[in-house]
Amino acid sequence: MRIRGQDYRTLWELPDAAGIEVIDQRHLPHRFVTAALRTPADVAVAIRDMWVRGAPLIGAVAGYGVYLAARNAADVTVNAAVAEAMEMLAATRPTAVNLRWALRFVADRGRDARTPDDARQQLLAASRQVVADELERSRLIGEHGLRLLREIAATKGEVNVLTHCNAGWLACVDYGTATAPVYAAHEAGIPVHVWVDETRPRNQGAALTAYELGEHGVRHTVVADNAGGHLMQRGLVDLVIVGADRVAANGDTANKIGTYLKALAARDTGVPFYVAMPSSTIDRTAADAAAIPIEERSADEVRYLDGLGPNGPTRVLVVPEGSPARNPAFDVTPVRLVTGFITEAGVLTPEQLRAGAGGR
Amino acid sequence: MRIRGQDYRTLWELPDAAGIEVIDQRHLPHRFVTAALRTPADVAVAIRDMWVRGAPLIGAVAGYGVYLAARNAADVTVNAAVAEAMEMLAATRPTAVNLRWALRFVADRGRDARTPDDARQQLLAASRQVVADELERSRLIGEHGLRLLREIAATKGEVNVLTHCNAGWLACVDYGTATAPVYAAHEAGIPVHVWVDETRPRNQGAALTAYELGEHGVRHTVVADNAGGHLMQRGLVDLVIVGADRVAANGDTANKIGTYLKALAARDTGVPFYVAMPSSTIDRTAADAAAIPIEERSADEVRYLDGLGPNGPTRVLVVPEGSPARNPAFDVTPVRLVTGFITEAGVLTPEQLRAGAGGR
Repeated sequence: MRIRGQDYRTLWELPDAAGIEVIDQRHLPHRFVTAALRTPADVAVAIRDMWVRGAPLIGAVAGYGVYLAARNAADVTVNAAVAEAMEMLAATRPTAVNLRWALRFVADRGRDARTPDDARQQLLAASRQVVADELERSRLIGEHGLRLLREIAATKGEVNVLTHCNAGWLACVDYGTATAPVYAAHEAGIPVHVWVDETRPRNQGAALTAYELGEHGVRHTVVADNAGGHLMQRGLVDLVIVGADRVAANGDTANKIGTYLKALAARDTGVPFYVAMPSSTIDRTAADAAAIPIEERSADEVRYLDGLGPNGPTRVLVVPEGSPARNPAFDVTPVRLVTGFITEAGVLTPEQLRAGAGGR
Repeated sequence: MRIRGQDYRTLWELPDAAGIEVIDQRHLPHRFVTAALRTPADVAVAIRDMWVRGAPLIGAVAGYGVYLAARNAADVTVNAAVAEAMEMLAATRPTAVNLRWALRFVADRGRDARTPDDARQQLLAASRQVVADELERSRLIGEHGLRLLREIAATKGEVNVLTHCNAGWLACVDYGTATAPVYAAHEAGIPVHVWVDETRPRNQGAALTAYELGEHGVRHTVVADNAGGHLMQRGLVDLVIVGADRVAANGDTANKIGTYLKALAARDTGVPFYVAMPSSTIDRTAADAAAIPIEERSADEVRYLDGLGPNGPTRVLVVPEGSPARNPAFDVTPVRLVTGFITEAGVLTPEQLRAGAGGR
């Protein structure tokens, strides 16, 4: 996708695969900064301190961390360096399932290597495959979702999508998940407009989704999280597309806090509500919502807010000094509120998802 | 209610009724500042620039503006001064119904005066009556609502209330509307805790409701507007109480944007949802939601946020420089989602309200 008129992905290789460069997303939307990561320690810091975020992107970046460990190690210490890097990288985001999966996927490929150089080549190839597979999944989600948008546009002449949080290309390598159908529609010349929920408390919608849509030239409007229900009541939303952190075997969907409220409003107003995600997000070991743990994050994410002040980036306190806050980071949308799941395997009904389609 | 251990109202008379003093709410929650208003122009600025806000408080303050016009005028110009003040004050908040009502109520009392001094006395008495009536309505809302909280506490041992925006004593003269039952329960020794919605984009919950509850010693927790549905799913909310800007004849309720989403979640999770308001809020001329206009406010209220930075109060930009925003300020909660209306005349069911109870 484009930033300042140039094509970008969220990560790319440095010359001679001596490392990767990533967009340091901490500075968005107010400054565009990239960072070169040349060692596993660089990669660990970038993940831990959230220069990069989003399950797909974290996995892709972490894969390269394993490869870089082997690249930088002396021949006799390659195996030890890989093991050490895996441990360090796995600890950066303790609950990130996709991170662990990518680390194993890449490291496994190096195990059968006959020489240290062969191992380096295999690890690099595996890292590239994580990226390529991720790209293909996002592209397919876009392709399948595009059909839904095309149908609406055929009737209405335009499509108004509401999305929550950032399940955009900045969370992936390119295209995104919830945004993939939007970019595909934009590419196809369909008039598409996106209502972007601010997504308090971390403002990923206002800061990231609005940024990536704006830079790519997609029409969008930022609204307070409170506004979505009213917009749907007034007929200003044709469909809701959100991402997912985890989907239970029955289709109950854990996603950024506030998703449930938008799903309720969509149901109440007859607006279709879609979850866009790679099928790897389906957790067949979780029967339903009750089996999905909800992360509670620091109350200071509610109490303070980061923005651009007159003298640069500034953190401001938005509650009284002595007031406590609570910060559940996700909520669960019961599957009864979900119209369908847009995956790389196609658009699944809740029944199809329950029957086992699209799972891994 | 108390601030820093002292009893306060949102306005009080200066010695010899030479003016009134108000809490300049622009500085809350980070600084407590009061301001003396001695002229109609002072009062107009305080209303227009939102030193004071909340329909009941605006009405009470405006009434004194009419009185002060007469007080400060030479005997021969009393009538002209009153007329001029009414015009100036009515223009401060063009859509505030209660403001216009209070201006007329006070001015009408001066009309039959036989002397300028009599007029001044009558206008002062009328201003005081606006305040006294407002106090009594809030007190009664608290008394009636207390019964609901007492019932829950009798079963559960404590009560968890969720509220949205600020329908607190800072919007009234004392007690508040949505908060009145909470303060009454606190006074009665019932263990009560309030979930305070931040209430983006203007953050009245985080800035004002949290402040007034905290200063009065009521347990509370600030949450992002997105969190309420999750809290209800987890059984952490016993009832929702919100205020209202306007209630249609059928019970459809216009209130701060986002109220509808909380009403949907309450219905979906079986949590009672109450609207607390003086019966003057019922607009019998509006048949239902369709007849209630929704104010759209400046997009900059979404794009910028005020908080306390390292060097004092700071306004920060929270969206990309080029991203547009929309700011519908209210939404309508259909009456089918409302459990009851807590008014000064008692707790009304939607059927009772529709049948004409509590209207003026």
